Amino acid sequence: MDAHFVDQGVALQADGDDHYTGAAHAAWGNMVGPFGGITAATALNGVLQHPRLLGAPVALTVNYASALAPAPFRLSAMPVRTNRSTQHWTMTITQDGSDEAVLTATAVTAARRETWSQNDMALPPAPRPQDVERLQLRGVEWLNRYDMRPVHGALPKAWDGSGDHSLTQMWVRDDPQRPLDFVSLAALSDVFYPRVWLRRATRVPAGTVSITTYFHADAAMLARTGTGYLFAQAQAQAFRNGFFDQTAQLWNEAGELLATSHQIVYYKE
Amino acid sequence: MDAHFVDQGVALQADGDDHYTGAAHAAWGNMVGPFGGITAATALNGVLQHPRLLGAPVALTVNYASALAPAPFRLSAMPVRTNRSTQHWTMTITQDGSDEAVLTATAVTAARRETWSQNDMALPPAPRPQDVERLQLRGVEWLNRYDMRPVHGALPKAWDGSGDHSLTQMWVRDDPQRPLDFVSLAALSDVFYPRVWLRRATRVPAGTVSITTYFHADAAMLARTGTGYLFAQAQAQAFRNGFFDQTAQLWNEAGELLATSHQIVYYKE
Repeated sequence: MDAHFVDQGVALQADGDDHYTGAAHAAWGNMVGPFGGITAATALNGVLQHPRLLGAPVALTVNYASALAPAPFRLSAMPVRTNRSTQHWTMTITQDGSDEAVLTATAVTAARRETWSQNDMALPPAPRPQDVERLQLRGVEWLNRYDMRPVHGALPKAWDGSGDHSLTQMWVRDDPQRPLDFVSLAALSDVFYPRVWLRRATRVPAGTVSITTYFHADAAMLARTGTGYLFAQAQAQAFRNGFFDQTAQLWNEAGELLATSHQIVYYKE
Repeated sequence: MDAHFVDQGVALQADGDDHYTGAAHAAWGNMVGPFGGITAATALNGVLQHPRLLGAPVALTVNYASALAPAPFRLSAMPVRTNRSTQHWTMTITQDGSDEAVLTATAVTAARRETWSQNDMALPPAPRPQDVERLQLRGVEWLNRYDMRPVHGALPKAWDGSGDHSLTQMWVRDDPQRPLDFVSLAALSDVFYPRVWLRRATRVPAGTVSITTYFHADAAMLARTGTGYLFAQAQAQAFRNGFFDQTAQLWNEAGELLATSHQIVYYKE
């Protein structure tokens, strides 16, 4: 049996201390290069596979310096500081034997302990995923990797400039189903189409420049979530002279906030 | 006349290609090391002072790997990829001749062009800054660097465990007044006290681990803002097993959203 698409998408081969090789997988193809979420998950996977890893991911920032070409890449993942309960990482992807970065990233991992905890942002009211129609997807290949059930702010039906908000809410999970882990959660943090398309009901060129995801989930919360749907919400805060931001939240069906994410996106016109 | 505290706080001396030296300034002292906002602004300043800089800041992520000691530091700021209109940076601070990172950071700068633009998050209703009482500050030194006028969610008056929300809103500007620029805006993005103190009305040890700021302002918007107050808002989304997040927005008095910021913060108990 073949590995799951997520595992194929983030696959790495160790290539000396702190280094790996890999290649973008066609199952995750986007308009230019692979879906950014799977690339972010791949960078995180270099941390998770590292023999010196301490704890689990708390923060991940990925900067997309250039499109990943459909060719082998080299990933470095360096533990640059290890404290008693936290560890700091820098990652870089290069291609074609060049030293020039295709991607830069940082991560923080930590050995978490149980403390007073509280969701301050509640799961919004929504119908159950089983009661929402599944999106029938067209277009780029990576969309077929997800079962998406939009509750609010689906892709505009008409590109007529009529948009008046930037909020999308949907139930989503891997297709085929796969128990949630940190790499799939990292990929899902980037699962939304560009907010500028919704806000303007206009399709303009757009691409993520930088994304940061904070992981509130620990291994126990991931295990509780299993193959259930996530409620994924995204909204812009400002569109300004070529860049807009997006703030996003991902809850499980039980209403636990698993991750919060933020990104800045280039757009044209 | 001495330089403004902000300029003293972010001061750097060039020390060969891609490198600077500096030292934390006592005017920005916090409980352990300097105020994180001025350290983030210092890392950004290494980009802004760099002879190869393209454009202006769009994104800044700073990871605090260790407390900055009251001693000289060395900052590297490397332009790792320069595209036609964007540039990617990695920064590192080290101390004591060690290679171990005290701070890691990344930034994206860009030559912005005028496009369709829109605030999607409006300035909340609030009294004018002149009509709000200025906070009389006690405690750590850096608090004296700001004129803060809390509108909502000021520091709890009693540490009695009675907290029920994590939202702070205030008018704030540099004291003495100083025309806003990218370094002061980067510092202001971290101007809030720990959300866990407000949410629990309980003082527990807490410290920022990683902060990301997106700059929506360009030079013209900064010039329009001048020495006016910023409306600064911060709220947590989740507190979970030792880490909480904070999402923040900074508007000028005219209601333009200048920056949005997000951070993940360690807390104890």
